[in-house]
Amino acid sequence: MAEKPLFLITNDDGVASRGLRQLAVTAAEFGDVVVMAPDHNASGLSTSITCNRPLRARLVEESGNIKYHSCDGTPADCVKLGLEYFCPRTPSMVLSGINFGTNASINIIYSGTMGAVLEANLNGLPAVGFSLLNHSPEADFEACVPTLRHIIGGVLQQPLPQGTSLNVNIPRLPAEAIKGIRICRQARAAWTDSLERRTDPIGRPYWWMTGKFVCDDKQDCSDELALAEGFVSVVPIRTDFTDYAAMAQMKHLEI
Amino acid sequence: MAEKPLFLITNDDGVASRGLRQLAVTAAEFGDVVVMAPDHNASGLSTSITCNRPLRARLVEESGNIKYHSCDGTPADCVKLGLEYFCPRTPSMVLSGINFGTNASINIIYSGTMGAVLEANLNGLPAVGFSLLNHSPEADFEACVPTLRHIIGGVLQQPLPQGTSLNVNIPRLPAEAIKGIRICRQARAAWTDSLERRTDPIGRPYWWMTGKFVCDDKQDCSDELALAEGFVSVVPIRTDFTDYAAMAQMKHLEI
Repeated sequence: MAEKPLFLITNDDGVASRGLRQLAVTAAEFGDVVVMAPDHNASGLSTSITCNRPLRARLVEESGNIKYHSCDGTPADCVKLGLEYFCPRTPSMVLSGINFGTNASINIIYSGTMGAVLEANLNGLPAVGFSLLNHSPEADFEACVPTLRHIIGGVLQQPLPQGTSLNVNIPRLPAEAIKGIRICRQARAAWTDSLERRTDPIGRPYWWMTGKFVCDDKQDCSDELALAEGFVSVVPIRTDFTDYAAMAQMKHLEI
Repeated sequence: MAEKPLFLITNDDGVASRGLRQLAVTAAEFGDVVVMAPDHNASGLSTSITCNRPLRARLVEESGNIKYHSCDGTPADCVKLGLEYFCPRTPSMVLSGINFGTNASINIIYSGTMGAVLEANLNGLPAVGFSLLNHSPEADFEACVPTLRHIIGGVLQQPLPQGTSLNVNIPRLPAEAIKGIRICRQARAAWTDSLERRTDPIGRPYWWMTGKFVCDDKQDCSDELALAEGFVSVVPIRTDFTDYAAMAQMKHLEI
């Protein structure tokens, strides 16, 4: 008999996040679950790793076939630590999320949720990140359940191509209003006016991260188009940054 | 008359790093230089950004046509802050480094040096990251100068394709022993045994980041091959994570 599937789950909103809990409970319908998630909010940490201090980790809670652990590192640290020390066997899949807020388009590059997925990808494991387009503390993660079941079940049944992971974004809609699921490409976009300058009470400047998301790439299978139309977007992603098309154009730099 | 080139320069080793100083001085041969670099070591921070606290920045030093600033953020923060508040005009190019140690192959994904390059790329600017394959405090950054001049001059003369940035790695060799410069692709590789478990004096476990770099992809234009043969590797990179080849294979997940 085939081994029961094992899921390693993390996120960047922290182990107490409702989004992570929803993902863990839904994955537990398919197999055993080991959670290793940050003990704090680790949003915007990308694929960063902790090199200059050691990490601590602990078991937070056991509930049925789910073990919740936390550590004081980044989402990518969580994947490394979970794989090497807390999973009783090699996971069938690494899952990350459900994130509060979008990781579609270029937001993938800043995302701790997706940093964990990229880390799992580098480890040669199937990996999927889930994000809901809703920052509100009242975000309805239950509306994501049909999507989670479809994607997790689908990837268990038909493995991802080697080297491919998935960036899944779910529109802010009741489950029955979601129109379907679309395979997409990452939309081109930019953040402008990223930092707001303020002055402290003694006259010195400081800057807060803010920004306007500017995207007019809502065509030809872009994830932003699918989401705007009410579909779940699924972008197959890879960790090879090479711009192959540009290689031939750069030969003049060789000596 | 064309405007004098302006370079925005950052790194992840901090504003006091000798590698950054060498890069700034060499770029200043071509135009004006604004440095905005972390005031601390920010290695391993990838493309992370600071969302939960404000940033501080200050002018550290002026030297000829170079202004050195530092801030308490990440390399990506430095690029945003430098572009929006410290550059007197849009830079001709964003440069990052020279990093102590390799950012070839998959190391790009953890690198703060390359995180800054990816941030500049998202801002639509030409950007180049430089790394020297030497972690020693005595690393010889002067041996990098001919490479810096060739790449910076070359990119000024013939602009990079839109959306393309460069990841430049320089072997640990005297300048005269470097065999040349090769356009490469990112080698496939993995880090194994990432974390070492230790026990503190009262018996509790903690984990240090460590790891073994495993790469047997030293063929077909890989950056690791070029470096092993004594060449500088130049990988054209992009910020589109989409695995286009996998899109057609994922259609069964659509509903």
